[in-house]
Amino acid sequence: MPEEKDGNNLFVNPMAKRRIIVLADGRFDIFNAKTAVGVIRYCREEVIALIDRYHVGKDPSEIIGIGKGIPIADSIEEILPLQPTDLLIGIAPPGGVLPPEWRKYLVDALKNRINIISGLHYHIGEDPEFSQLARDYRVKILDIRKSPEDLGIGTGKAKETKAVRILTVGSDCNVGKMVTSLEITRAAKRRGVSACFVATGQTGIMIEGAGIAVDHVLSDFISGAAEKLMLERAHYQLLSVEGQGSLVHPAYSGVTLGLLHGIVPQGLILCHQPTRKMVRHTNFPLLPLPRLIELYEGIAHPVHPCKVLGISLNCFGMSDQEAREEIQNTEKETKLPATDPLKFGVDKFIDTIRPLLP
Amino acid sequence: MPEEKDGNNLFVNPMAKRRIIVLADGRFDIFNAKTAVGVIRYCREEVIALIDRYHVGKDPSEIIGIGKGIPIADSIEEILPLQPTDLLIGIAPPGGVLPPEWRKYLVDALKNRINIISGLHYHIGEDPEFSQLARDYRVKILDIRKSPEDLGIGTGKAKETKAVRILTVGSDCNVGKMVTSLEITRAAKRRGVSACFVATGQTGIMIEGAGIAVDHVLSDFISGAAEKLMLERAHYQLLSVEGQGSLVHPAYSGVTLGLLHGIVPQGLILCHQPTRKMVRHTNFPLLPLPRLIELYEGIAHPVHPCKVLGISLNCFGMSDQEAREEIQNTEKETKLPATDPLKFGVDKFIDTIRPLLP
Repeated sequence: MPEEKDGNNLFVNPMAKRRIIVLADGRFDIFNAKTAVGVIRYCREEVIALIDRYHVGKDPSEIIGIGKGIPIADSIEEILPLQPTDLLIGIAPPGGVLPPEWRKYLVDALKNRINIISGLHYHIGEDPEFSQLARDYRVKILDIRKSPEDLGIGTGKAKETKAVRILTVGSDCNVGKMVTSLEITRAAKRRGVSACFVATGQTGIMIEGAGIAVDHVLSDFISGAAEKLMLERAHYQLLSVEGQGSLVHPAYSGVTLGLLHGIVPQGLILCHQPTRKMVRHTNFPLLPLPRLIELYEGIAHPVHPCKVLGISLNCFGMSDQEAREEIQNTEKETKLPATDPLKFGVDKFIDTIRPLLP
Repeated sequence: MPEEKDGNNLFVNPMAKRRIIVLADGRFDIFNAKTAVGVIRYCREEVIALIDRYHVGKDPSEIIGIGKGIPIADSIEEILPLQPTDLLIGIAPPGGVLPPEWRKYLVDALKNRINIISGLHYHIGEDPEFSQLARDYRVKILDIRKSPEDLGIGTGKAKETKAVRILTVGSDCNVGKMVTSLEITRAAKRRGVSACFVATGQTGIMIEGAGIAVDHVLSDFISGAAEKLMLERAHYQLLSVEGQGSLVHPAYSGVTLGLLHGIVPQGLILCHQPTRKMVRHTNFPLLPLPRLIELYEGIAHPVHPCKVLGISLNCFGMSDQEAREEIQNTEKETKLPATDPLKFGVDKFIDTIRPLLP
């Protein structure tokens, strides 16, 4: 949990003092249960149980490397003695739909007066069955991805704010942008910088308790939403903004670019997973890092000059030795500081960012 | 009006056999009344009157160069003897809001049983006063910009369709992309090509009677919407797609890139207005054409290789001689065929596109 909260929160942290069940049935692994993994990593103390009937009895740390001691169950009923207050939907699938086989868990939760927290595109609160149950049992359904109603188009105005705006971008989607932005925020705070993590996706919002899911605003308002996030937080020294998608991913590139032109960052951290060879869910090869740097800087430039300041490597599945070699090779290839935030921290990035701070 | 209609129309042409009043009060000029100008140019025979109280008694051709003989009035009442059936909102302002001083025209129209056709973000049909009046007087409110409900994320699948997909892109917004795409469609049809104009914005949809306003879909679905438009029209030889915004415009770049990666075009026509020096509504200078070509081709390439095939110049306000010189200079600078579609036609583009057709 972040220690310091922004006064202009758009959402009240839905997870404060709650006892959360994370639903990740059949998809609890490091790549598919992105939301579950993020919430377990950054809100560990509030998670009391997980649901995945294929992993009952195992320890989460065996599967995702974190979350030691959280029980994995196969039904809501089994968890009732632990007095859960909330059921959090722990996946972010392409298209944002609810897997049909999960409806029963939601029904059971509502009937046992457990709130639902969802970041899906599909609004659980607008589903006739779920909304009726929520009324009948007086429980809340929180659809995190709903966007504020006062959005407008972007103007590039964020560049006039004094805060240093650092945006994470990716060689692909799902490579570690949120984790990198969170780790930069934490490390900066430890060094006495007034820093704020700016959430732009459902998991980030669940962790930070504020933000806008920019992939769920009307497409005309992507950069306007990003700009709003910046203007409301202009009093910080450092705004560490969670990026979305990738400039080269055909499904998400529009959101990526709208975010880039709305945030108007002074610096980018390019995130990459060295073992990934193809763009996710496609048959397109990933571009080499120097070419990606050129693309991101080139497309940012007409709105505001901006440099890639470092490379964040997600070395999941590699040994520390392999990761170190990968980092060395990347630094040689790009002439930029590189690190794996979870294995080796982000001090290198803070050293680069600090001279820019107001 | 286009001669040939696509069988898979998403919208029935709202303007068939209608007698339309175009509302452009206080903004009837070539740059602000983009929708009015487009509808007058391409649906001339259905427009019976215009409203702009600052131009009453003038002829539209004096102001926008077209629409000779259409009367300009300052109230709905004055036009009633001409038996209007529809009031069309003839502007596309930033943010898509309804100018407050226009409410009275809408109220008068509804009370006189005249339908409303709107392409604004603000849905007229959801306004309490207007929707009540529409019920009371049994008239229709058509919000063109509402998006289909079955959209998903983009996959890059459009590249498997055999149709040649030509997308217009811009050095800025509002430089002539829709007109260029419409003129390419018409010229191709005249040469016997099976061609379809693909509308992606409200004016284009009003003209073609089909399409999706891609700036009004959820941002996660921009490229998915574009892909849907392609897959439904895969049986044509040529799909001439109306582009949106510009890669370098901070408000619209997300939509521009999502469209580019969803359409997966084989070729682009770069549209530009030579007299424009700054990006619209900003203080950013426009980029030189060779740099823009590099940016568009560079960002398209990771999904599918694609070349800029020609430059469409909007030489509005220049003499024919000045336009010819500008075209020559542009051809020299870019080594690509250039033309002003309205002054000199688009035969040069058709010559370049034709060898690519299936």
